[in-house]
Amino acid sequence: MSVVYDRVALIGLGLIASSMVHAMRRAGLAGEIIGTARSAETRDIAREIGLCDRVVDTAAEAVEGADLVVLCVPVGAMGGVAAEIGPALKAGATVSDVGSVKQAVIDNVAPHLPSGVHFIPAHPLAGTEQSGPRSGFAELFDNRWCIIVPTGDADADAVARLRALWEGMGSFVDTMEPEHHDLVLAVTSHTPHLIAYTMVGVADDLSRVTDSEVIKYSAAGFRDFTRIAASDPTMWRDVFLNNKEATLEILGRFTEELFALQRAIRQGDGEMLHDYFTHTRAIRRGIIEAGQDTDAPNFGRSPTK
Amino acid sequence: MSVVYDRVALIGLGLIASSMVHAMRRAGLAGEIIGTARSAETRDIAREIGLCDRVVDTAAEAVEGADLVVLCVPVGAMGGVAAEIGPALKAGATVSDVGSVKQAVIDNVAPHLPSGVHFIPAHPLAGTEQSGPRSGFAELFDNRWCIIVPTGDADADAVARLRALWEGMGSFVDTMEPEHHDLVLAVTSHTPHLIAYTMVGVADDLSRVTDSEVIKYSAAGFRDFTRIAASDPTMWRDVFLNNKEATLEILGRFTEELFALQRAIRQGDGEMLHDYFTHTRAIRRGIIEAGQDTDAPNFGRSPTK
Repeated sequence: MSVVYDRVALIGLGLIASSMVHAMRRAGLAGEIIGTARSAETRDIAREIGLCDRVVDTAAEAVEGADLVVLCVPVGAMGGVAAEIGPALKAGATVSDVGSVKQAVIDNVAPHLPSGVHFIPAHPLAGTEQSGPRSGFAELFDNRWCIIVPTGDADADAVARLRALWEGMGSFVDTMEPEHHDLVLAVTSHTPHLIAYTMVGVADDLSRVTDSEVIKYSAAGFRDFTRIAASDPTMWRDVFLNNKEATLEILGRFTEELFALQRAIRQGDGEMLHDYFTHTRAIRRGIIEAGQDTDAPNFGRSPTK
Repeated sequence: MSVVYDRVALIGLGLIASSMVHAMRRAGLAGEIIGTARSAETRDIAREIGLCDRVVDTAAEAVEGADLVVLCVPVGAMGGVAAEIGPALKAGATVSDVGSVKQAVIDNVAPHLPSGVHFIPAHPLAGTEQSGPRSGFAELFDNRWCIIVPTGDADADAVARLRALWEGMGSFVDTMEPEHHDLVLAVTSHTPHLIAYTMVGVADDLSRVTDSEVIKYSAAGFRDFTRIAASDPTMWRDVFLNNKEATLEILGRFTEELFALQRAIRQGDGEMLHDYFTHTRAIRRGIIEAGQDTDAPNFGRSPTK
């Protein structure tokens, strides 16, 4: 693999940015990687573990002379960062991001970017429940999808180059319209996260079931929800605030279905329940065949854990 | 470890029963293990893989001379099995089960058992999304809880012996009242399963998001739900039909909370969302500290899967 960008600037140094550093280094995709983060503590950790070639104190400083700038901050912070870096961007540079919502990012970032800069939003569909500069690892994007959402400002060469970077980091790449991206993600990610947060909140709240019981007996299914509900609170707050329409729409569909199942339980309609549960099993098989999850029971958790 | 029961009969040969066979053999807990299943195909597979010492065609035959009989069939089938085996049980034998609901099992099974038999319901909180006689493994119960729900018919020695069996198979053992068991499990297992089934059903149903997109982009969170929603449909139908009250109660709490979060999204109340998501993160830490899940990111899934 050869160098795709001479200088890459990462704004924000959490799970995704730190994984990008490891993945770019693994394949030699970047000549030099500059990083910055708003919090001094994060910058100190990044310096201590030698995450980037250089860690600087401000976003404006980080983007100087960079061929690619990637915004790796929560979706709600992207507009502010764009305003800060706009005047400092090199002509012909590409600006991208890794946000979980695309239309709102376009609305908030694009107005701050000078002409002559290629704005190419992207979203790698990969993550874990962990966060911070120490949580990254080179394999995070391997065999995962990255969705690129090109805007009018980007030419085909610039898009092809960003695609090469993500493929070099191990991803499959797709392109999509922002609105469709936001709907698909509301289904496969945003609503499931909200539901998991809710279920964990309910369990925590029930006074007749003590915390200790919920925790002791969590292996019965609940613990899978708690993994999702352990994700970064700021990131997820911003996702819901910025993908409001699609999330509320899918939530509406979800409660409609849930009420139908609830009614079947109340009325003792075993046939409806059995049919429903049989159908959903097939989707799991599809995901395993597509290489998007392991077929090992319990995700291959160690049985003694 | 020494023999706890000279002869154990397992009625039903799915994931739990087949794991019990492997776990009992690992520790030498049973002199002889007799198995049976309603389906001829299941019995044939069990014979082919040498699962039990003997596989017989009927439940009545299986329980002859057995010191321990364990009902490992879906909760809705237990009453019928109890009626069938009642007259064939050896005096002084213990009858137990592994059902996910306890009050309904007691109501349906107890009337069919002769006096002089110890009825001691139990529920091992362990499982995977797989089912059938080939899916069992010896480590399934290691470090998992088994809840014993003793009834009036059981003497202390019989309870202690069943406890020794489960501890020998690797479990921690707790005792509980049936009603409390059913509420705790509605929180930690039954409602999470129903919600996962519902979310997977919604995703499958949305015509604007194709199946293929849902599957391709499932790694964003959704795939964790599909694992739970791939569990055995008959078993889960029976759980909901037989733990109706507690499940409906927890579902009511769940929709109440969900509506509160939905309202916060609609109104743009970022503070409420952030507080909620911060709080649920702590529960995950508790579960990991209690040894009930792995702290490896993504459950320790292989990163290339």
